[in-house]
Amino acid sequence: MRATYMYAPGDVRVIDVPDPMITQPADALVRIVRSCICGSDLHPYHSITPSDHGVPMGHEALGIVEDIGADVTTVRKGDLVITPFAYSDGTCDYCRAGLQTSCHHGGFWGSEHVGGLQADAVRVPRADGTLVAIPAREDPALLASLLTLSDVYGTGHHAAVRARVGPTTSVTVIGDGAVGLLAVLSARRLGAERIILMGRHKQRTDLGREFGATDVVAERGEEGITAVRELTGGDGTHVVIEAVGHMPTYTQALGVVRPGGVISRVGVPQYDDAPVGFASLFGPNITLTGGPAPVRAYIDTLLPAVLDGTVDPGKVFDRRIGLDEVADGYRAMDNREALKVLIRP
Amino acid sequence: MRATYMYAPGDVRVIDVPDPMITQPADALVRIVRSCICGSDLHPYHSITPSDHGVPMGHEALGIVEDIGADVTTVRKGDLVITPFAYSDGTCDYCRAGLQTSCHHGGFWGSEHVGGLQADAVRVPRADGTLVAIPAREDPALLASLLTLSDVYGTGHHAAVRARVGPTTSVTVIGDGAVGLLAVLSARRLGAERIILMGRHKQRTDLGREFGATDVVAERGEEGITAVRELTGGDGTHVVIEAVGHMPTYTQALGVVRPGGVISRVGVPQYDDAPVGFASLFGPNITLTGGPAPVRAYIDTLLPAVLDGTVDPGKVFDRRIGLDEVADGYRAMDNREALKVLIRP
Repeated sequence: MRATYMYAPGDVRVIDVPDPMITQPADALVRIVRSCICGSDLHPYHSITPSDHGVPMGHEALGIVEDIGADVTTVRKGDLVITPFAYSDGTCDYCRAGLQTSCHHGGFWGSEHVGGLQADAVRVPRADGTLVAIPAREDPALLASLLTLSDVYGTGHHAAVRARVGPTTSVTVIGDGAVGLLAVLSARRLGAERIILMGRHKQRTDLGREFGATDVVAERGEEGITAVRELTGGDGTHVVIEAVGHMPTYTQALGVVRPGGVISRVGVPQYDDAPVGFASLFGPNITLTGGPAPVRAYIDTLLPAVLDGTVDPGKVFDRRIGLDEVADGYRAMDNREALKVLIRP
Repeated sequence: MRATYMYAPGDVRVIDVPDPMITQPADALVRIVRSCICGSDLHPYHSITPSDHGVPMGHEALGIVEDIGADVTTVRKGDLVITPFAYSDGTCDYCRAGLQTSCHHGGFWGSEHVGGLQADAVRVPRADGTLVAIPAREDPALLASLLTLSDVYGTGHHAAVRARVGPTTSVTVIGDGAVGLLAVLSARRLGAERIILMGRHKQRTDLGREFGATDVVAERGEEGITAVRELTGGDGTHVVIEAVGHMPTYTQALGVVRPGGVISRVGVPQYDDAPVGFASLFGPNITLTGGPAPVRAYIDTLLPAVLDGTVDPGKVFDRRIGLDEVADGYRAMDNREALKVLIRP
């Protein structure tokens, strides 16, 4: 079958690999129906350590169950399933607490003998804990939105939930990528009435307004901070969702958060150390939260409004390609020609 | 009158200064009845920049109102009052939200023409927002416990509240100073059933057990982390209260917090940058919270159990001195001869 591998910065290839097979009784074999490229895939696209063997790519997918191991009980051959960006056993303390990304027996796609999801098929470990069967057929109009439940919609929701967004919280979202825009949608659905979106790409921020942003600030850095402070009577917002992951956006978050407020990070940080001392977080009682979203925990909550069309998070996909064109897809997202690229193998 | 000034590391003196006077209609003049030395006073005691003018010291006190300005309505001459470690107007957005340490018109003792509280008397700005009159006379048995409401008890409570400690949360408290011990007391009162106290001074950790600690770990660093992990099935605790403020205790907190958990800091950080990246906070979805406690907001909640003797936070005071002996008091706390020093001017 075909699978996507990354070998060096900017070097993404679709290669032929052996078909995946069930090796454990808890496995399922899933044929990928839709996959996509994530903003977080661009981090290795810039900085991966070159290698001859390459790294399997892709962590978001919808698929059809082709086969199951002897122990699998919650999905059946032929089911349409969401494949979250982490696999998990569904039974450990962390899974039961809704933190599947810390599962004692879980892991991430593309590591330790598990393939990536920008491919024709994949072996899914811990299928009962990982996969969610969708009570819908392959309705092309819905597939894009269902696909966002494997990562970006759940991640935007996680950012808002961790920050305890509600009707009385004002929110700034930093970043107009898919996660930032879906954080806007999530904050709105949790009741936020003031949502400031910081982003520079009009097409994207227009979608952000459609999702619920009340204000858009195109400036960055000090100018952006000043603009948000002017919009908020000098104080900043109760919540800042940081959906990028670079140090300048962390600094920007510090600049626009209100004393007593929360910075919720869902952009994978590309830094280790950052200011947390008296002048930054401590003095004004700022809370720093966030992390990889346990999207598996949120699917039950978010699915109904997707199925009945109340929300359409799939609008973040603005380009559709075949698996063979995946290198072009990375390039288009990296150049900001595309917001988010959907792959139909 | 007499007041305490710090001139250089280790150089604390009681000097004669002009008596404070009411200068604003919102001021009150308070004669100090009890004051004390704080663990956080030891930070400048080690690292203050030497100066000829010195810095007024002390931010915790009980006093008697001697006089009030024309606009003051909530306290009267003769009232016994708690003087929180920050003054605040009581009316701005932050004060009404219970974050008096970020008051738009507030500030801290010993800065900007406001004296310190290790003194005979003090001018209290914004008296209506700042002072809390106590419905009790000068009962010597109660004064020590009432005094802790000006800082250390409220600070321990803040650490536990910010971390959302409850009956189902396991807690580690790092630090066996007064704040750490009162964080133990606070966590217990909020329902925590498992409280691990990390501290090396048996007399102090014994008081910690009396306040509610179920386990004591004397080891520090990697050994301490291993010990806490062994006590918690390898996972660490849901909440870690960091009541010291040095980088090694931050690292220790990272080592003993459970994925999905909270590190709540109330030790004033003596560092600016710290690890917050994927391997430390982000990957395991750790929340970092805390800051200077708005103790003014907590007095109403904490006072009844102090007045009726249900709790006795004043047990943290193990030495009593006169104001003239304050230099000795600093030395005793710095040498760990005394846990917390009470001053009777």
